[in-house]
Amino acid sequence: MILHGYWRSSTSYRVRIALALKGIDVEHRSVNLKDGQQHSAEHAERNVQPMVPVLELDDGSTLTQSLAIIEYLEETVPEPALLPADTVLRSKVRAASLAIAADTMPIQNLRVLKYLRAEFAQGDDGVNAWASHWIATSFRALERAAAERSTRFLFTDAPGMFECCLVPQIYNGVRFGVDMTEFPALTEIHDAAQALDAFAQAAPEQQHDAPG
Amino acid sequence: MILHGYWRSSTSYRVRIALALKGIDVEHRSVNLKDGQQHSAEHAERNVQPMVPVLELDDGSTLTQSLAIIEYLEETVPEPALLPADTVLRSKVRAASLAIAADTMPIQNLRVLKYLRAEFAQGDDGVNAWASHWIATSFRALERAAAERSTRFLFTDAPGMFECCLVPQIYNGVRFGVDMTEFPALTEIHDAAQALDAFAQAAPEQQHDAPG
Repeated sequence: MILHGYWRSSTSYRVRIALALKGIDVEHRSVNLKDGQQHSAEHAERNVQPMVPVLELDDGSTLTQSLAIIEYLEETVPEPALLPADTVLRSKVRAASLAIAADTMPIQNLRVLKYLRAEFAQGDDGVNAWASHWIATSFRALERAAAERSTRFLFTDAPGMFECCLVPQIYNGVRFGVDMTEFPALTEIHDAAQALDAFAQAAPEQQHDAPG
Repeated sequence: MILHGYWRSSTSYRVRIALALKGIDVEHRSVNLKDGQQHSAEHAERNVQPMVPVLELDDGSTLTQSLAIIEYLEETVPEPALLPADTVLRSKVRAASLAIAADTMPIQNLRVLKYLRAEFAQGDDGVNAWASHWIATSFRALERAAAERSTRFLFTDAPGMFECCLVPQIYNGVRFGVDMTEFPALTEIHDAAQALDAFAQAAPEQQHDAPG
């Protein structure tokens, strides 16, 4: 399999963590978002959206959207599980993942920030305030859930789909100036995850296309 | 079960369609987003995010995030299936659903439009241009996929998770002035879905809390 992604893309980062947790080896190919390669004709053949990541299967099928890719990995390589067995808990893990994947990251995505600059004449201050506002808003909600947990990670004792989303979102949050001291429980989960090999090897700076 | 939602909320609308397709009866209770009831202490007990929908189970558990709720319904009431059996196709249906649930709706959500008005001094023109831009961008990608389909709906001959997302998103698109004549294949899917009872009964105007 080939993962078409980008070192700094937080959605690519989510899938890299999931692959590493499951011990699945893939070839990594870079789609340079900074150079606009996601808009190339070649990439359009893989994904109708000009976005990464894309997981290309051995038969040439292409899977898109990080959470849909993670669900595919979960169905085809069940162990170690990234979702708990209980149906209510599974739904809760998916919901917390979507609080990041739907309600946070798409609002602070590069294409959105570009629109704010081009159409609403926002500079760095306006753009950073925007991004950190939406990230902190979601983290406040998730912190409440995390503070009440009785498990090592959010709903489980092993890292799963939520932690695949949280760690990259905190990486983005720090870039945009979110003060993580407001979120001690999320930080605990983050630090517990970062201590694991799978998270370390999926880190942006460890990727072949990261600047040297 | 109780669905805490709002007639005009497109995420509530998604879950109403899924429930209707599966023939699951629930009690509907309104969280009036216009009056800010999603920020009440009562609602905060149901959802750490001030959002709808929330599906309250008979044991008092509360499930949030429309796609996570739909996955729960799929796992607990498998028929009729809202996801195909094939793992690659399942992932593709989930990905198309996320193109709406992650990359579209959260960017044109009411809270985001309020921020544009309050912080970036945008009026109706700026706000509508913003919302219709992001909706049309996603519809252009999805139209490519829909135009190539060989099935009645996007990847299947019966409506599923994607159609639960598409129909409410088109409802929003029309409100924000998106020209649907640009999207004939999506419109075909929409019209085929709307001809079904499940979609008719889930429509915003059919809800008990819609203005009379």
